[in-house]
Amino acid sequence: MSDAAPMKWWGWGAPDRRLELGAQARAMLADELGTAEPAARVELDAVRLPAARELPDAGARAAGEVRTDHEDRVRHTAGKSYPDLFRARSGEPAGAPDAVLAPESAAQAAAVIDACSSAGVAVVPFGGGTSVVGGVDPVAGPHGALVSLDLAGLRHCEVDRVSMTARLGPGLRGPEAEAALAAHGLTLGHYPQSFEYATIGGFAATRSAGQSSAGYGRFDELVAAVELAAPAGRMATLRTPHTAAGPALRELIVGSEGTLGVITDVAVRVRPAPEVARYEGWVAADFESGAAAVRALAQADRLPDVTRLSDAEETRVSLALSGTSGLKRSLLDSYLRLRRRTGGCMFIVGWEGEPEDVERRRALSSRALRQSGAVRIGSAPGRAWSRGRFEGPYLRDELLDLGYFVETLETSHTWSRYQELYRAVGDALREALAAQGTPGLVWCHLSHAYRDGASLYFTFVAPRKVGAEIEQWRAVKTAACEAIVATGGTITHHHAVGRDHAPYMSAEVGEVGLEALRALKERLDPAGIMNPGKLLPERD
Amino acid sequence: MSDAAPMKWWGWGAPDRRLELGAQARAMLADELGTAEPAARVELDAVRLPAARELPDAGARAAGEVRTDHEDRVRHTAGKSYPDLFRARSGEPAGAPDAVLAPESAAQAAAVIDACSSAGVAVVPFGGGTSVVGGVDPVAGPHGALVSLDLAGLRHCEVDRVSMTARLGPGLRGPEAEAALAAHGLTLGHYPQSFEYATIGGFAATRSAGQSSAGYGRFDELVAAVELAAPAGRMATLRTPHTAAGPALRELIVGSEGTLGVITDVAVRVRPAPEVARYEGWVAADFESGAAAVRALAQADRLPDVTRLSDAEETRVSLALSGTSGLKRSLLDSYLRLRRRTGGCMFIVGWEGEPEDVERRRALSSRALRQSGAVRIGSAPGRAWSRGRFEGPYLRDELLDLGYFVETLETSHTWSRYQELYRAVGDALREALAAQGTPGLVWCHLSHAYRDGASLYFTFVAPRKVGAEIEQWRAVKTAACEAIVATGGTITHHHAVGRDHAPYMSAEVGEVGLEALRALKERLDPAGIMNPGKLLPERD
Repeated sequence: MSDAAPMKWWGWGAPDRRLELGAQARAMLADELGTAEPAARVELDAVRLPAARELPDAGARAAGEVRTDHEDRVRHTAGKSYPDLFRARSGEPAGAPDAVLAPESAAQAAAVIDACSSAGVAVVPFGGGTSVVGGVDPVAGPHGALVSLDLAGLRHCEVDRVSMTARLGPGLRGPEAEAALAAHGLTLGHYPQSFEYATIGGFAATRSAGQSSAGYGRFDELVAAVELAAPAGRMATLRTPHTAAGPALRELIVGSEGTLGVITDVAVRVRPAPEVARYEGWVAADFESGAAAVRALAQADRLPDVTRLSDAEETRVSLALSGTSGLKRSLLDSYLRLRRRTGGCMFIVGWEGEPEDVERRRALSSRALRQSGAVRIGSAPGRAWSRGRFEGPYLRDELLDLGYFVETLETSHTWSRYQELYRAVGDALREALAAQGTPGLVWCHLSHAYRDGASLYFTFVAPRKVGAEIEQWRAVKTAACEAIVATGGTITHHHAVGRDHAPYMSAEVGEVGLEALRALKERLDPAGIMNPGKLLPERD
Repeated sequence: MSDAAPMKWWGWGAPDRRLELGAQARAMLADELGTAEPAARVELDAVRLPAARELPDAGARAAGEVRTDHEDRVRHTAGKSYPDLFRARSGEPAGAPDAVLAPESAAQAAAVIDACSSAGVAVVPFGGGTSVVGGVDPVAGPHGALVSLDLAGLRHCEVDRVSMTARLGPGLRGPEAEAALAAHGLTLGHYPQSFEYATIGGFAATRSAGQSSAGYGRFDELVAAVELAAPAGRMATLRTPHTAAGPALRELIVGSEGTLGVITDVAVRVRPAPEVARYEGWVAADFESGAAAVRALAQADRLPDVTRLSDAEETRVSLALSGTSGLKRSLLDSYLRLRRRTGGCMFIVGWEGEPEDVERRRALSSRALRQSGAVRIGSAPGRAWSRGRFEGPYLRDELLDLGYFVETLETSHTWSRYQELYRAVGDALREALAAQGTPGLVWCHLSHAYRDGASLYFTFVAPRKVGAEIEQWRAVKTAACEAIVATGGTITHHHAVGRDHAPYMSAEVGEVGLEALRALKERLDPAGIMNPGKLLPERD
């Protein structure tokens, strides 16, 4: 888990790690989607980058290492969305930084930003590079050069055991942060699917949510204080458990996606490392009754630390795809015994902590689940989920290898409009895929529940529209986003805004809200060098 | 509780309600503080107000009722801090609005703000008028006239039972909101000491925290969405349970104290009304071990819904003052049985909800308290606390009648610096009172605990410095604030900033943080009409 090997430049995970789809799974995809044309993947040397522009002398070379070699530039061209991956494999990234700067301290990072602000060089903060919304796209805006500010050199960890907090460097990857905390018997408990490569700074900058966030809190809830190096100067929020002193500046920096400055330190709330973790599977008759069961759990304060409800299609497809890898046959077997529930929906629920506490909370959740009509199918599905919890991005690479178009998107809404949003987005995706001439599979799960509503996470797979891959992606993504906006959902529950969702920010926050965000941006980053093109839409 | 009678213009509560101190309590005060000179209280007619300036025709008369009579103006001159009350009683308020405007809808409120922004008329939003930090001081700044925008006309309540949320009007007082929700079997569960008169809009604008906030959440945690009428236009956050779409605008409006616009609607998360409430008393050997017990509760997720730990002096004084009213003799009796714990510290802990759940959580908390060395002294102190939970402000009026100087202030810090802050502020208060020639009593309690720290709430009483009351208050308040800043605590845990804490905002958020807040203010309120002089310090 604390593997420090650099990721595949063209995909996810360490170069030697692959999640191979079994013959049965491939046959199922071919049967339901038709055969796709396997996509070529170029060699690293063949990736075409724009010529690196010269950085102003007084500019970005202020501090730290300056790297301009081909591989470094390729690795900082994009994040890990479908268009990012497709372009990388094709050897045609949409742009590249002119240099990669790697400061070794907060002071060096601040010096770089100061110099770039004076020189008019765009700065794209880069943590794990795992954005799936174009959050690290090398957009220079009006500037004549662009640097990627790689934060891997900022990896401190200072624990305050009495207050159960830790100051963490923004460049720590998920497993590195957990390893540093584990040395003190502590955990952060933040496990998004990108955990293996995403960083602390990225979690904060994008309001990350993890698989166990119901138990440990979303990342924005774990942030006790944060420091930002902005072109206008250093901004640090006070290290107290709570304050009523005005608008919460912490909540301005968290979620700012590198557009106001770069996060140089994050003080997080930590917990004792759990002694036990228990995950198990349940089945609901359908997505509506399953969601009602989750609502009952949330509103009775009985939410497990992990709660994931798949819709009928995700349940069916994930069982079919699991085959010889990922989800185990035992999951399928357990489910088949309950096959009288045709179209049933799988839950994964889990509890972590001290054994006695886990058992007590498990009993309370289980009683509520049974009262909602859900049926327990044992711990095998839970163990299978736990083993495969970070495998989604590996599976995506396999699907891309096979020539499929695969992408995910997410939203949330109140319980009273939850099913309406579920239907609207699912319909929009299916219709848009069909309109592209590439009917596909669309499935969904609920993974973050609250007293007042929950998230929806959609995955869709279709044959690649050969020669028009980006247009296909854009048409389908746009249809889904428009359905979300029309139904009053949020444009993002935890993937953030980046470049892909920026056009929808006006619907999200309104024109006056946009003006408030622009006012902040203009004051903290007067030259507009910080992560251009992200978060805020262009002015009309 | 839902008494709609207007408050005493010179003090707290309905005109016919008084909390009389017994002879024993008065004797104790005289013994420990010396006799004070009872303060005169003028009649309403004798209150001296500045002549009301004419409002521009095109200005503030845009919508709703315009009131300019003497009593209305007096009632909107100030909040309820010690200087506010002292000045009111003396008939010498520090200023007054030129008129009181009372819109009857969000649209009318927005029209008033729009007109005032055009005409350059200062607007002070006014909810319950319970600020203790100068939050409604009629400061016109550079403007030629000032109106108090009374929100009592905005009192809607729309419940979404499925999502367990409610849209509430900002003018609803605490008891009115609870009564409206009780009709649906629901509660907000927000009970600050000002509950009887403070309003929903004020709770949101000041980041209010209540006595049960460990159980129900602080008010800022209860806010699901909020609407603001700003001079720049209407700003409404999206009604979804969570979003990762950028900096949290909701967290900018919450806590903005009327300086960006006026809050016209608050969507809150609600809960089923509790079936039972159980409060009880415990005793710890001293404040340090009591705080350690609270820390253990918080870090083990065992915090009761109410947790209040008095220091030894608060324990002693509150028992002595309780006499024949407020806290009951039974509390004293219970405590005396444990008098071998000289200098002991009283806890009040409480749980609310379904009977089974209350008993389960009570057992868990109690086990943790016993493990920390605390001793249970029964439910009588809990019942006494519950009866007297809103009586603090009534007691303050009695102390003012007797001629004493009495004030409160609050802060918070991480557990690792909690005792240091407790000592620093207590010492600063005692020394500053002595330096004024008026040595006094200083006591403190912890009422809001978190995994990473807790609040400190100080009360101090001393003889009034006759003829120099405001100077006395300012010297003591300044000493405490400087001690807080020097120790790294927050300038306010839940009283907000207002005018009194504005000079400390630079220490709280730093110069770049101040610039961020100013940028917001200047974009949303370009004419600077909204609640001038609050929250932000003057530029150097």
